[in-house]
Amino acid sequence: MTKAIPDSRDSYRLFQPITTRWMDNDQYGHLNNVVYYSLFDTVVNRFLIENGLVDPLKGDIIGLVVNSNCHYFAPLAFPDRIEGGLRVDRLGSSSVTYGVGIFAEGSDTAAAQGGFVHVYVDSATRRPRPLPAPMREALQSITVD
Amino acid sequence: MTKAIPDSRDSYRLFQPITTRWMDNDQYGHLNNVVYYSLFDTVVNRFLIENGLVDPLKGDIIGLVVNSNCHYFAPLAFPDRIEGGLRVDRLGSSSVTYGVGIFAEGSDTAAAQGGFVHVYVDSATRRPRPLPAPMREALQSITVD
Amino acid sequence: MTKAIPDSRDSYRLFQPITTRWMDNDQYGHLNNVVYYSLFDTVVNRFLIENGLVDPLKGDIIGLVVNSNCHYFAPLAFPDRIEGGLRVDRLGSSSVTYGVGIFAEGSDTAAAQGGFVHVYVDSATRRPRPLPAPMREALQSITVD
Amino acid sequence: MTKAIPDSRDSYRLFQPITTRWMDNDQYGHLNNVVYYSLFDTVVNRFLIENGLVDPLKGDIIGLVVNSNCHYFAPLAFPDRIEGGLRVDRLGSSSVTYGVGIFAEGSDTAAAQGGFVHVYVDSATRRPRPLPAPMREALQSITVD
Repeated sequence: MTKAIPDSRDSYRLFQPITTRWMDNDQYGHLNNVVYYSLFDTVVNRFLIENGLVDPLKGDIIGLVVNSNCHYFAPLAFPDRIEGGLRVDRLGSSSVTYGVGIFAEGSDTAAAQGGFVHVYVDSATRRPRPLPAPMREALQSITVD
Repeated sequence: MTKAIPDSRDSYRLFQPITTRWMDNDQYGHLNNVVYYSLFDTVVNRFLIENGLVDPLKGDIIGLVVNSNCHYFAPLAFPDRIEGGLRVDRLGSSSVTYGVGIFAEGSDTAAAQGGFVHVYVDSATRRPRPLPAPMREALQSITVD
Repeated sequence: MTKAIPDSRDSYRLFQPITTRWMDNDQYGHLNNVVYYSLFDTVVNRFLIENGLVDPLKGDIIGLVVNSNCHYFAPLAFPDRIEGGLRVDRLGSSSVTYGVGIFAEGSDTAAAQGGFVHVYVDSATRRPRPLPAPMREALQSITVD
Repeated sequence: MTKAIPDSRDSYRLFQPITTRWMDNDQYGHLNNVVYYSLFDTVVNRFLIENGLVDPLKGDIIGLVVNSNCHYFAPLAFPDRIEGGLRVDRLGSSSVTYGVGIFAEGSDTAAAQGGFVHVYVDSATRRPRPLPAPMREALQSITVD
């Protein structure tokens, strides 16, 4: 495995503020590695829900995570204020590879980065469905080359 | 047990913004009841740490929770933006009863409220310690009658 | 408030084994106070689901938590093996007060105890519904006086 | 990225029982993708602590996660009983690549699999330290080729 290099801020297309929680810190006094995946989920789903692209409870399609990964570069700790950067790394017919960077507020370099692949499925049958046109368009707008 | 009544905003002394997370929602599509206690912990400890009153890793004293409770009035759900209100309900020699209200952003009425009793102990011996004067003073300033 | 006294094992009607997790420990090296509420939820819902009394995804009724509380007596820590004791403290027409005790494996005295009030509601309208007869009967069998 | 294939049971060296929790399920009624990382952490640290190889609070060395990943194949849901399989995929001088498979109880095929790289550092200076001989020996015993 090649050594990962922290992303800079400008490699993400939009940012969301995130407040940390006391329970995020583990016994070593820093955000536990698991917490970052909870932030990935949050950044992606907030984007989808607030833009009306996915409705988790009543919509036709839902996103299922098929794989995920994270590289950790620098510790963060409650009560730090942090930001989540979002981009799309790859847009398939029914799958999307999201990239998320977690930054200390105002920092130019990611403290951790990674992401996951969502396959969009019919919420009833759970079989893959092509992305609806408005969703494809919105995701295209945050896709990087 | 008497029926609890939701607090209004003006019964709290300070407010903190809180961002919700995808995982906060349970199978019923709303913030799980457990999450509110994580927010209580967060609101209290952020106040203590940011005001330099407690240093969890290097300080002489730490707060141990001896009991806690919450009343739930109205559902909240990710990606709602919410606020945590804080007050002190009772200030003892080594114990503090914190009151926390969780509000939808801008709402005048608590969606949930409760709190916990912290007993402050020596971080090494874990025996109760009187509150240091600066801490007592800061907590006095947010104590309600 | 009167000082709470730890329950003994025989004040609960059934027990479930629970495995602790690394993330349960907070910065002070013990199970965070919030985690106990997650265990309360788990003990009650496992009982309801495994006995076919509630089906969270397809059933007619769901339980909403209206209030909850916990007293903490002794620390537990990952990787401790623990047990959750369950009883019903009060059985209303559509509400149930559950009591849960968390014990170190094999211990006779609760490390923490508390519980919550569930109001059972129609899963669609979210309005209170009387407990179905089989559920009432099952809950009656673990009710204490 | 090549398509991942679920591991069979015999590709892991030891197993631990894990109890699921109500909060593990997300809005879609299955274990949230984040929860698996909490189980990875749990399986590895339980092995290390119960074998006396790492003492999180008082030991000389602690493990920091530098990267992690997971592939998801089949859903699991509370109140399923599950098992975590553990192996070491690569043993470096101060780093260890752990592989963890999450199985429905008794299943021969992983529902999810992945793992993380731990770098062991001095608990005070947080600089890398060679693995102590007893730890290396224990980890060698669960290393696969």
